[in-house]
Amino acid sequence: MRLLGEDQLDDLTLGAAVLGTGGGGNPYLGALLTKQAIRKHGPVELVTVAEVPDDALVVPTAGMGAPTVGIEKLPQGEEPVRALQALQSYLGHPITHTASIEAGGSNSTVPLRVGATLGIPVVDADGMGRAFPEIQMVTPGLYGVSATPMALADEKGNTAIITTIDNHWAERLSRSLTIDMGCVAAIALYPLSGRQLKQAMIPGTISLAEQLGRLIRQTRAEHGDPITAILRRLGGNRLFDGKISDVERRTETGFAKGQARIEGTGPHTGSMLSIRFQNEYLVAVRDGQVVASVPDLIVILDAGTGGPLTTEELRYGFRVTVIAAPCDSRWRTSQGLALVGPRAFGYDLDYTPLIDGEPPRSELVTEGDCALGDE
Amino acid sequence: MRLLGEDQLDDLTLGAAVLGTGGGGNPYLGALLTKQAIRKHGPVELVTVAEVPDDALVVPTAGMGAPTVGIEKLPQGEEPVRALQALQSYLGHPITHTASIEAGGSNSTVPLRVGATLGIPVVDADGMGRAFPEIQMVTPGLYGVSATPMALADEKGNTAIITTIDNHWAERLSRSLTIDMGCVAAIALYPLSGRQLKQAMIPGTISLAEQLGRLIRQTRAEHGDPITAILRRLGGNRLFDGKISDVERRTETGFAKGQARIEGTGPHTGSMLSIRFQNEYLVAVRDGQVVASVPDLIVILDAGTGGPLTTEELRYGFRVTVIAAPCDSRWRTSQGLALVGPRAFGYDLDYTPLIDGEPPRSELVTEGDCALGDE
Repeated sequence: MRLLGEDQLDDLTLGAAVLGTGGGGNPYLGALLTKQAIRKHGPVELVTVAEVPDDALVVPTAGMGAPTVGIEKLPQGEEPVRALQALQSYLGHPITHTASIEAGGSNSTVPLRVGATLGIPVVDADGMGRAFPEIQMVTPGLYGVSATPMALADEKGNTAIITTIDNHWAERLSRSLTIDMGCVAAIALYPLSGRQLKQAMIPGTISLAEQLGRLIRQTRAEHGDPITAILRRLGGNRLFDGKISDVERRTETGFAKGQARIEGTGPHTGSMLSIRFQNEYLVAVRDGQVVASVPDLIVILDAGTGGPLTTEELRYGFRVTVIAAPCDSRWRTSQGLALVGPRAFGYDLDYTPLIDGEPPRSELVTEGDCALGDE
Repeated sequence: MRLLGEDQLDDLTLGAAVLGTGGGGNPYLGALLTKQAIRKHGPVELVTVAEVPDDALVVPTAGMGAPTVGIEKLPQGEEPVRALQALQSYLGHPITHTASIEAGGSNSTVPLRVGATLGIPVVDADGMGRAFPEIQMVTPGLYGVSATPMALADEKGNTAIITTIDNHWAERLSRSLTIDMGCVAAIALYPLSGRQLKQAMIPGTISLAEQLGRLIRQTRAEHGDPITAILRRLGGNRLFDGKISDVERRTETGFAKGQARIEGTGPHTGSMLSIRFQNEYLVAVRDGQVVASVPDLIVILDAGTGGPLTTEELRYGFRVTVIAAPCDSRWRTSQGLALVGPRAFGYDLDYTPLIDGEPPRSELVTEGDCALGDE
């Protein structure tokens, strides 16, 4: 157990934005609200997975919706607390811990806000090891843990509790409710026992986010290269250096969807990299060849500061470096790929694992709505 | 208290189709499922409003969605029972009675099915005195009763419980869930105490439906005119005789919406009547003049048998008689009209109460999407 105070939050949210792979909610807004909660209620107890009793009732909390909307319609702050309380009253048992279901972006700090406000410990773990856009895309799903009963709460005071026959139905019903609630909602879901948590969640990811943030900050202070430092910590490759030449964005079915095109500079002059996103960066295509895809992490970094950029922050003319880093090994199993591989997002593309130092090269595919290689 | 068995159901559903004003779900399907439940579990106890103890916990049950879909995707039958049970477990108190929230169409028999299956009495009352398409359109809303906590259940096994800040939000969230669930769902909503029930619901409407059905059946047997008999029982006017010349239908935002045009015959030769619907018949326009509108009841009857026709049953060439009957007086107050008057459905039209024997005549309006008088 250790205490997380305001001082740790800047590192944590900086690192969480790396794991966010473009999504997971705006880290800056998440940090502001969480600092406010810590200032009011005191620091948060962060416990390791091993410290959670087997009979604990752990309920992860998060924000759901389109990040594009989340930065315009600001949360009131207490929504995730209300979601957790609604679920607690439905379950009829005290919830002993909360956790992050998604360590990336502001969803790394939402549970800290809940933990501080309610005085319950937060588990140092998450259900993705990164950020993914949909409810069923979590490791507990690989162990048969149900997303439901799941609670949703909005800033107006509406709440909903859904119980579904599978996690895809949980995604479907909660997505519609989120859209109705204004494209952003707070959620409490995947209730787990301590025993299930130990098996099904990815341990240490909140600490990993904090370490990544500290690494970036310290490397900057030492005038080193934060991008190399990030790659050294996560493994993975520097995919591309370039300048953003185009960003297409649309808010569709409650998601921020689109594509960014990056014109190569330096060693990549004459090349073009295109990155598709659905809240998170999903597939990177260089000159018509897939060079990285989900479930591996694709991160766009500011070439100057090494700071990660969310999809909302991408702008024409930005100088960026794109890196790819390996995902949790459970995502590379056939069950894992069925949930979060390229085909789960509609891409007619087999996943090729990223090999450290050598990006994969998949064949070009050109079919359907999600066709690649059309740049 | 009296027992309702299979024998009473045919009269009841025939009369409920009159009160259904075109909607409320297909009465024939509702009757089949309810007969099945009564055959299996025995007859239903129907109690009067006065017989309900003040401290009773009454929860109306119903089907929600587009009737067009309801007749193609048949219910499994137990969905409303599951909705009620989900709400009961959420409320943490035994539900002592169920009731109809909408006496029209198959929603008159849904609570009978629930009552038979669970062995709880059904109250002879409803929340509309007819059928209306939206959740907030009920008399309990006039007395500040909340639609939520409200439960939804589908035939697959998914359930949801919503708690909203007002009844319009209940409509909005439950409509989206219903669409996701396949455009049809079972619901349990407007939990009321016995005391609230006595104040806020419309008493005797299940018996009224049964009487109407019996009247039609007996008048037919005596070779009389069932249409005159219905008008004598409900009050109201014979608006139009004619032949259906056109039906426009679309399933939109989870509703069956559209318009029927009727070419005058007999005394109405040379005239044209058009009826707009959203699950139920909303506005009748004769030769460019509004002759009846919500909240009054507009009913299309088969000219030969006097049997009521739902919007789904309308077909080119049918000979029909259109009648209008007065609504419950509470709907004619300003609060009532705000909930269910023509403007609540988007018509730029003031409500003119139907006067017995003399249909109202409103001015033609021609604005916007819901403009009238364009026939």
